[in-house]
Parts: sequence; C-alpha cells; structure tokens
Amino acid sequence: MPEDIRKNFSSDNVVRVCPEVMQALMEANDGSASAYGNDAYTSALDARFGEVFESEVAVFPIVTGTASNSLALSALVSPFGSVVCDESAHIQNDEGGAPEFFMHGAKIVTIPSGNGLMQPSALSHTINEKKAAGLLAPPIQALSLTQASEWGLVYQTDHLTSLSKVAHAEKLTVHLDGARLGNAIASLGCTPAETTWKAGVDVLTFGGTKNGAMAAEAVVFFLNDRTRPFVENFKRRIKRSGHLWSKHRFLSAQLLALLKNNLWLRNAQHANIMAQRLSTGLQALPNATLPYATQSNEIFIALPEHLVQKLEKGGFGFYRWPTPAGVDGTMIRLVTSFDTREKDVDALLDYIAT
Amino acid sequence: MPEDIRKNFSSDNVVRVCPEVMQALMEANDGSASAYGNDAYTSALDARFGEVFESEVAVFPIVTGTASNSLALSALVSPFGSVVCDESAHIQNDEGGAPEFFMHGAKIVTIPSGNGLMQPSALSHTINEKKAAGLLAPPIQALSLTQASEWGLVYQTDHLTSLSKVAHAEKLTVHLDGARLGNAIASLGCTPAETTWKAGVDVLTFGGTKNGAMAAEAVVFFLNDRTRPFVENFKRRIKRSGHLWSKHRFLSAQLLALLKNNLWLRNAQHANIMAQRLSTGLQALPNATLPYATQSNEIFIALPEHLVQKLEKGGFGFYRWPTPAGVDGTMIRLVTSFDTREKDVDALLDYIAT
Amino acid sequence: MPEDIRKNFSSDNVVRVCPEVMQALMEANDGSASAYGNDAYTSALDARFGEVFESEVAVFPIVTGTASNSLALSALVSPFGSVVCDESAHIQNDEGGAPEFFMHGAKIVTIPSGNGLMQPSALSHTINEKKAAGLLAPPIQALSLTQASEWGLVYQTDHLTSLSKVAHAEKLTVHLDGARLGNAIASLGCTPAETTWKAGVDVLTFGGTKNGAMAAEAVVFFLNDRTRPFVENFKRRIKRSGHLWSKHRFLSAQLLALLKNNLWLRNAQHANIMAQRLSTGLQALPNATLPYATQSNEIFIALPEHLVQKLEKGGFGFYRWPTPAGVDGTMIRLVTSFDTREKDVDALLDYIAT
Amino acid sequence: MPEDIRKNFSSDNVVRVCPEVMQALMEANDGSASAYGNDAYTSALDARFGEVFESEVAVFPIVTGTASNSLALSALVSPFGSVVCDESAHIQNDEGGAPEFFMHGAKIVTIPSGNGLMQPSALSHTINEKKAAGLLAPPIQALSLTQASEWGLVYQTDHLTSLSKVAHAEKLTVHLDGARLGNAIASLGCTPAETTWKAGVDVLTFGGTKNGAMAAEAVVFFLNDRTRPFVENFKRRIKRSGHLWSKHRFLSAQLLALLKNNLWLRNAQHANIMAQRLSTGLQALPNATLPYATQSNEIFIALPEHLVQKLEKGGFGFYRWPTPAGVDGTMIRLVTSFDTREKDVDALLDYIAT
Repeated sequence: MPEDIRKNFSSDNVVRVCPEVMQALMEANDGSASAYGNDAYTSALDARFGEVFESEVAVFPIVTGTASNSLALSALVSPFGSVVCDESAHIQNDEGGAPEFFMHGAKIVTIPSGNGLMQPSALSHTINEKKAAGLLAPPIQALSLTQASEWGLVYQTDHLTSLSKVAHAEKLTVHLDGARLGNAIASLGCTPAETTWKAGVDVLTFGGTKNGAMAAEAVVFFLNDRTRPFVENFKRRIKRSGHLWSKHRFLSAQLLALLKNNLWLRNAQHANIMAQRLSTGLQALPNATLPYATQSNEIFIALPEHLVQKLEKGGFGFYRWPTPAGVDGTMIRLVTSFDTREKDVDALLDYIAT
Repeated sequence: MPEDIRKNFSSDNVVRVCPEVMQALMEANDGSASAYGNDAYTSALDARFGEVFESEVAVFPIVTGTASNSLALSALVSPFGSVVCDESAHIQNDEGGAPEFFMHGAKIVTIPSGNGLMQPSALSHTINEKKAAGLLAPPIQALSLTQASEWGLVYQTDHLTSLSKVAHAEKLTVHLDGARLGNAIASLGCTPAETTWKAGVDVLTFGGTKNGAMAAEAVVFFLNDRTRPFVENFKRRIKRSGHLWSKHRFLSAQLLALLKNNLWLRNAQHANIMAQRLSTGLQALPNATLPYATQSNEIFIALPEHLVQKLEKGGFGFYRWPTPAGVDGTMIRLVTSFDTREKDVDALLDYIAT
Repeated sequence: MPEDIRKNFSSDNVVRVCPEVMQALMEANDGSASAYGNDAYTSALDARFGEVFESEVAVFPIVTGTASNSLALSALVSPFGSVVCDESAHIQNDEGGAPEFFMHGAKIVTIPSGNGLMQPSALSHTINEKKAAGLLAPPIQALSLTQASEWGLVYQTDHLTSLSKVAHAEKLTVHLDGARLGNAIASLGCTPAETTWKAGVDVLTFGGTKNGAMAAEAVVFFLNDRTRPFVENFKRRIKRSGHLWSKHRFLSAQLLALLKNNLWLRNAQHANIMAQRLSTGLQALPNATLPYATQSNEIFIALPEHLVQKLEKGGFGFYRWPTPAGVDGTMIRLVTSFDTREKDVDALLDYIAT
Repeated sequence: MPEDIRKNFSSDNVVRVCPEVMQALMEANDGSASAYGNDAYTSALDARFGEVFESEVAVFPIVTGTASNSLALSALVSPFGSVVCDESAHIQNDEGGAPEFFMHGAKIVTIPSGNGLMQPSALSHTINEKKAAGLLAPPIQALSLTQASEWGLVYQTDHLTSLSKVAHAEKLTVHLDGARLGNAIASLGCTPAETTWKAGVDVLTFGGTKNGAMAAEAVVFFLNDRTRPFVENFKRRIKRSGHLWSKHRFLSAQLLALLKNNLWLRNAQHANIMAQRLSTGLQALPNATLPYATQSNEIFIALPEHLVQKLEKGGFGFYRWPTPAGVDGTMIRLVTSFDTREKDVDALLDYIAT
C-alpha cells in the first residue's frame, strides 16, 4: 500500500484543517483587533450567514459542537423545563452531560425511533404524556433534531416541517443540531434555507469542525418572534461559560472561510461522494448488511467478524458499533471527510477484498 | 507619526498571535490525529511543563482564562462551599459570573486590600469569621490569588508562602490565576517553581493568550495529596463544559510553542521592559501620579484630564480606570505586550509630550 | 352509603395526619428550643433509628420525599456523574426535575424492566455500556432502587442483595427510595435491617408522610466506609436548599412518634391488609385483570371501562393509569392507608358489584 | 427567679408555636384533601392575602424563609444575572448559599450602608458601575430589601419608594424580605399595603415562623406587568426544590390562622412593645450604648463585658454580635417575640441590675 494513503475513517473530526481555513487564520493575524468579538471578522458574520441562509439571522461563533448545542438549548429551555429529542441524539449520548450543565439541570426527554428519525406522531404522544403529568414532569419547551441524523440518514424537508408544526403548535422552539448539516444539504440537493428555517427550524448549530475548520461552529438564530428574546443575552451565556475568546477574530475567520465560495458545501459533497463509493464497495462484500442507507458521510455496515478484524490488522481506523437486533455480523462505522481521496477509499476496498 | 506604529495599549489580549505560535499551528496541521486530546501534542504536555516547573504535574490545555480559572475552582470547591480572593480579583469582577456557573453556585468571598495583594492576617480573619457562622455561611475551601495581581503589582515569593501556610492550615487548596504569570516571573527574576508550588500553590492557571498564543491557557495541577483527587475527573469537567476540542492538538501545540526555548518568558520580559519604558516616560509628565508601582506589563497612572483626552484624540488605545480616593487627575490603564516595540512606546511619549 | 365512609383511594398522601403524630406535635410545643436542629428531639433521632435498624446511622429529617431523595442523591453523585434507576422510578418521572436540580445537572440513567423491579444483569449491562463510552457519558456513581416499587411489587431481600453486589463491585453507592418502606417490610415480614443495610443499602429515604405523618421523611445513612464522607456536609446541603427548619423539633417529633411502639409498621401493615381486601374483591369482578400482584398498599388493576366510570360517578377517588400492552380494559390505581377502614373497602366493593 | 420565666432571647425562631396556629393545624386534620396544594385551605390564600394587602396577589406558602427568599429571587433573576442588596442582608450572610443554589449561580452584589438601610444614591452608583462593565459583570435584574432590616431599623415608606423608583427605572424587580414585616408595620403604624406594593415592592417574602407559625412563610406576588410572567411557573420551582408538600393544607392553614383577626400584627406589636421595654431598661445600665435605635423586636446593644458574662451565667439566651467600630463594650443581640411576657423582660432587667 502506498505510504501516503489516509487510512483513518474513525471520524470526520480526526482529520486536519482544510488549507483554505488555515490560510484564513494566517491572514487574520495582522495587527491588533478589539477583543471579545468586537472585531471586523465577527461583525461580518450576520450578513454573510444571512446571504447563505436567505434570512435575517444572529450568529454566534463557538469553538465546539458540544458547547454550541448546549448554549443554544440553555437559551431555549428554563432550568425547570425539558427538551425532547430522538433517543440516538448526540445531546443525550455523546456530550458528557454538557446540555444538562448549561441548562442548569433541565431534563432531556427521549423518543425511540429505531433509525434516528423522529416521527411526528411519537412527538405528539410524548408531549401529551408530559402535559398530563402536570407539575410532576418538567414541561417540554424545545425540540432538538439532528440533520444529518445519528445513523447517517437525512430528514426530508417535509418530514422536518411536520415535526416543526407539532412543536410550534405546542409552543416549543425548534433546534437543529447541524454538526453535519452540509452533508445533509449536499445529500438533499436543497438550499440551506429549505432544510432549516423554511422547514420550521428556529435555531441552528452550524457545524464547521467536521467540515474543515480547526475548531469553529456557530449558533445561528433565525430571527422571528420566538427567537428574538433569546438573542439579547446570548453573548452573556457565551462569556459565562468561558467561550468568549479575547482574540475572537480567529474563531470568526474560520467560519468566513468555510462560507466563502461555498467551501462548506463543496467539502461536504466531496465527503458524501467518498462515502457512497466506500459504501457501495463494502456492500459488495459477501454477507455484508447495510441496515441504514448511506445518505451522508457516515457508513454503518455489518460485516463478517473476520473481515472486521482484517481491517483492524490492516491499520484502518474505524469504530465497532452496537449491532442492531436482527442483523448478522459485526457492525462498524466508517466516516469520510473533505480530506478523503478516491485512492484512500479504493485502498481500503482493495485491501479487504483480497 | 509613521504609519506602522502600533498604538493599541488597551490590553495584551488585543494583539496578534506571535509568529512562533502561528508556525506551530501550521506544523501541527499534518495528517490525522486521535480526537479529544488523545494525540501526541497533548500527551507531551505533562512532561514538558514538568521540566519547566521542576515538578510532577498534570496539565490540561483550555482555550480561555475564564474557563481555566472556573474549571480549576470547580474541582476545588463544592457547590455548597466558597472560595476566597482579593476584592480586585478577575474571578470576582471580570468573568461574567463564570466561576459561579462552573462551581454550581458556590460563593466567592472577597477581602479588601487596596492594592490587590491580600494580607495573611486578613485571610485568617475572614476564615475565622466564616467558620463562626457555622451552617449559615458556606465553608471556605480554596484560596485564589492572582500573580501578577490586578493592579500590576507582583507578590514576592515569601508573601505567597505566608498566604499558602494560612490556607493549608485551614485545609484550603491554593489556586493561582497566572494570566500574567510570565510577567511576574520576569519581574521577580525567580524560577517558575519558586513562585508557584514552592510557595504553596497547588493549582495554576497558566496564561498563554496574553503572552502570544492565539487562544490557549492551561490548568496545571502540581501533584500532591491535596491535588491528586482533583485530577482523575478533570477531563470530564472539560468535556462537560464544551471545552474539549475534537482537534485538541491545535490547543496543545500553542502551549508547546510557548514553552519552547522559553518563548513565554522572553515574550513576558520584553513586555515588562516596554512597560518600564512607558511608565518612566509618563511619570515625567507634569502632575502625573503613579499610585501603583509598575512591576509587570500593566501601567496604572493618573494624568491631567487634558492629557488623557489628547491621547484619545491621537488614536492611542487604552482604558480609563476608576481613580482611587485621594489621587488627583484621571486614572488610565495601559498594557504592553510581546508585540510592543520601543518605537511604539516612544511615539506615544513623543506625542503626549509635545 | 353511610356519610362517614372514606372514599378517597387516590393516594396515601391525601389522608389526614394520624392521631399519635398530631399528639406528638402538640407535646413538642412546650417552651423554647434551640433552632436549626440543635434540639432534644432531633438529637434523639440517631439513637432511635439505630435501634430500629440495628445499625449505626446518621439521620436527617426532611419535610418531603422529593427533597429527601434529591438531597441524598446530591451527596452520592457528582455534578458530572449519573445515577441509574428503573425506568418507572419516582426520581425519573414524578419529582418535577428535583433530582437534577439538587444534583446540579447530573444525569438519571434508566433501565427498562416492565414491572419496576430491576434485574442485576440489566444493571451490569448498562454500567458496562456507559463505561465504554468514556468521556462521552457521565460515569454512573449511584444506584437508586424503590421499595416497595412503583408498581406495588416488593423486592425480595436476596434480589436487593444481588443488585447491591453489582453496584458495590463497580463502586456505586446504593440508595433506597423507601417512601413505602414500611409497607414493603410488612409485606416481607422481615426486619427493617434485612431489607436495607443487610441487603447492601447505603442510604435510605425513610418515608413518613404516606404512613401517617403531617410532613416528615428522613435520609438515613447506614454508616460504612462508603457513606461516612457524605455525612459531614449533609446538613449544609439541607440548609442550602431551604430545608432546615428553625423550629426543627416539629419535624423530628413526627418521626419519633412514628417509630414509637412500631407505629410506622402497624400503620403500614394495616394499609396492606386493606389493600389485600380491596384487591381480592376487585379481582372477583367479571373481566378484571391484575397485571401486577398486590404486594403492598397499591392496587393496579384493569377493569371494564363501564365499571371504572361507575366508580367515578360514585365519588370514589382513584387514578386512571396507562394500560400496559396486552391488557384489556381500563387500568386504574387505588391506594389504601392507615386511615382506610374495612367498611370503607367494603362500601366500594358493594357499590361496584351492585 | 420564678420557674416559669422565659429566658431565651436568642431569636424569635426558638419559641413555640402560638396557640391559635396550633389549633388551626388540629382543625385542618379532618378527612382527606387533594394533595400538592389543590385543597381548600391553599385555594383561600390569594383572596385572604388580597384583602389584607388591598391588592390582587398570587400567594405561595413555603416552609422556610430561606426557601421563600431563594425561590422568589430565582424567578426574578436569570442564572447569568445578579441581584443587589445591602451588605448586611440575610440572603448574603445567613442562608448558607441557598440564593445562589436556587438562582443557579447568579451573583449577589452587595452595597455597604453601615446601618442596613440602603441609600438610593448608592444603588444608582452600583447599577451604573455594573452596566459599564458590560459582559464582564452579570446584569443586575433585581433589588432585594429587608423590612425590618438586619440591624432592627425600619425603612420609612418614602425611603422604600425612593429605592423602588431607582430600581424600576433600571428595569429591576423589587423584592422585600419580610421575615419581620409584621414588626415593621407595627412600628410604622402603616397599612400592609403602604410599606409593600404602594412603596414599589413587587414580590414579598411574608414571614410567619418568627411570628408564631410552626413553619410557614409565603411568597406574595403583587400582580403587575413586571410580576405576572413570574407567577405561571412558580409552583414548578416549588415542586422542583422539594417544597411542595403533599399534605399542603397544613402549610396554608398556618398562614390563614396568622391572618385571622390580624393575629400576625397583634403578635408583632406585642413583640415590639416587649423590645421597647427591654431596650429602655438595658439603656439605663451604666456604660450601655445603643448604636442602632430599637425600632422593631431586635435589640442591638453594647454592654460592659462583665454584665454580658453575668447574663450568660444567669442562663439568659442571646447572641454576642460583632461590635461596630468606635463602640465601647461588648455588643449583644436580644430578640423578643409574641411569647415574651412583661415578667420575662423584667426578670432579666432585675437580674442584671442587682
């Protein structure tokens, strides 16, 4: 195998920073700038995101996805309230209790779906159940969805719209965890607006790090009557959690670089194409099972155990994953990124097939 | 005035990243690396800081000083407890309530000093007063000191030792906010060990951002019987506050660059020298008063109002500051940094004198 | 129907205070007493509970079960940790988010059982799953069980012991929500010690209010190496949550009255006997289904809808309950208490049967 | 000295329950009642308090003053905000950190006054100072005053009005800690309305326990545009802190008993008269100094040390208190109550004078 093959498919957060973002950081390092976000880079964010999302927005750059999701939810949910999400959600399973910390102990209520895509009827049922419990159950105040979802599937825009309608009718605010929003948009072939505010999303966690940034996400409020009250003090929440950089321009510059010339969408589309290539190749293996269609840049596939061990011995990076009931073989997850090349995919496929 | 004069003396956090740190970031951007701090850069921190501080240490890189101080205190203080500090402390006045957020509502008890340097007798008095209050007052569990302190003065090492002895005798842990520790060490001419663990400091917030980093500080535990219990779960606290980067290497690489060839001390010493030059020049102005000696890189000086206005009109960056009782004129604060040059200082002095 | 029939079976917390407790409150109202628990009544609690439970204990009287459970868990679980319980647990479903408030956002991890009795294998599985998640999942630090459980079933002592062994092997502390502990003991015919510390319970919420008190529960620490560290500051947690009465004697006097001459066990046994009588009578109705055996003072039974409506029209107090899958009819819950008489039960049975 | 002399002047919270309240508890113990405050006693509170205070109100009975103050403030202040009070305030010094717990870490900002009565100019100054600090200081969102104040002095109604005007102009809500409100009203000779909502108070902690209850206070919202939004979810906050009794009627019945026939004001007036008698007698002692006028039921007086020791030896209950600068002798605090009789006061005065 050639020496320069990239063999780490364990996540899209293990790769390097994409060159355009690194270049932007160097260019931003010119002279002094006002601290705490009062700089020209940060000031440009609202207008730039507004163009991309065709909406009036308030944008707050934040260094990690965990902090972004948690800060957004802390604005939407009272300490005595709760947020509802799919049982597979990152905020429930993968953020070390950060949402509860930022929300001061508000509860996360989960709904089982089997595939990471919440059904509107299940949402209605859970809302009604908690309302019936009165004082004994914290009131649900927000809905948090994930796009692309945790099993790599992508919500269709009308599916999102149905969920948002249920939520808004019950006075819930709708949050979208978009750590892989670019991949979802590239998969859907829609505009950024169509899968966000036009589908009822009020607040978005815009993912940058998995898509080429060094460390940069953004909380994007689509301004409407529900969201306006949250914007005023949001920067206080950021400061209070130690997430307001003094040299804030270096956070904002990363985001501007991702938006420039649609770099974020091009990066995401490339990752998706690599994922399709990898998924198709793996499905051709004997006894391979794909319980979830590959719709973004994550592949969840069950292979015979000996093939999984072969990949491990070959030095390829990926995770073993809980195998769903009724699926034979060993479930693994592989993730592609802007930095995955055709030859990297083919090297893995060649290695496992021979 | 020549065009390339740097006129922003408002803080050491408004300047750019120093070239060595920027270079280190670029070099770290090579291939993939395990996420969440399981990378080679982060793994090297304990040994590297251990050499510099001549002690066994556990080091946790964190992106801001507010988060570093708050996370450190959250480990040291129970939610039902309290931390004591000088009334001028950053954790009390300048961090937007972050310490209380991370400490889950533990109280900050303040002691007045007048000059930012706490007296051991005052510390004893406050501890006894709170003990006498029994259940009505949260027990003091930690002492937080600032070096260099908030009025630019530097604690002598025996002063620190006296305070630590009082604290340890009462089972308090000693935290040092070292946002400008390099400046204090350069001022004292001591070793890093002498003004930290040898003087009784248990946990240090090591400042990087004000000293040339893009955004990097570190919580340094000097390992002893008091601190060992705090280390085990500290990374969980970091994750839970959204401060664990997936591409953590870019945080650690900044710190390694600062430690390499004593860059942090050379940067700090340069800033101090520039501060002396600026302070000396300003003191020569008619009716200038220097209520606090210039011992690090911050200058607090009272000037006639018309001179302050002249500086403002000249486009120089600095802050007006509350004027202490009994001091005539208008108090201002000016701060120098690694990026301040002799010609920048002289340009200001020439401008104000003519 | 005679006028003095008691028709409210909706809960054991809707009834009056039992006469012995009311008498004790009047007797305690004699002269002044030191405030905040430094009175003779409170001082007697440790010894009195120690006799009843045949163990060295530290006892803290607290006014509600929600506060008792939440305070106990707040001592056992770090803010960054979690507690595991059955999915039916009161702490998860019925306390308005209080446990999360007192635990400062620590998570509640639930295990499904179907009948409210956790299986040791399921506990092991969940613990291992969370350990495998590393930093992404808050570490489980405590196990909370409920005796009698939420579907009225009672843990056998060897079942409790098996669960405690799993918990202790993983360094979890074991908490028992004993809101209806008296009913469980009366059902098991065991000693208070056998179903608590001898079965591995470290900390107990001792229920008083549902068993005849006006408003009084107790957190009971069975002193061992695991629990001793929690005792020292527990009273601070009580004060900090506004649960330290100044006239604390009136809280303690209720508990002493319940323990005197085994009143608590006699009250509970009476309630159980009334529940058996009621359950047996209801089971005799056509098409009645009893999905959970009546083992304490709660009856969960499915009846034809027209009978349920008849009971409602007759003015009897009870709750409709979610009907388990596969059960026909309408599920209801009825609860008996120390204050339920044979004639009250018979009046209901006569009414529904005719 | 006759045997039935009451010698405990240490606080008004060490005495017994007044007979009328005890009687009311016994009368409330009749049959079953809906749990969690859905009973007839609790339902009567709004109307009854509304009559007494001549205002539309929402009343929430709560068992302790610490919980009442903390719950009220938690509704008024965001976790990222702050509340301002006098440096002597109970919420700052005597509640074990409870306000910070309930407010989720919001800060308490204190203003020095010397005598416990805040000056409007000092309030303005502090508000402006914090506003100038921008993101670095949590915004002040509420003003908390104490009536009668912590040194026994009573705010005149126009003084309260001046403070409220400053607060309201800055969009702060005004909270009154009325643990001894009855004593203040009896001292002022005004109506309950005049020293509360007519003077700008939005939310009141109505004290019952120190005035004859077993354990009962109330949070009273005077309904206006500022307070209405806080009422909706206040009961959730109560439940979430474990302060919602299942047998809630026993909490409400105490308050109704206090309001009946102005018992609360008669109790308070009696305590005040006893305090005047005691204060006058003590002032007549040689070298006695009264730094704060006796305006309610607390006496703060400096006596020669030998007299203080004599009182201690005589078995009288009282507290030594920090002696203010410039005052000779030993400062002590004595408190009278509804249960203090002329002969109790005279016995103390006779004892010390002979």
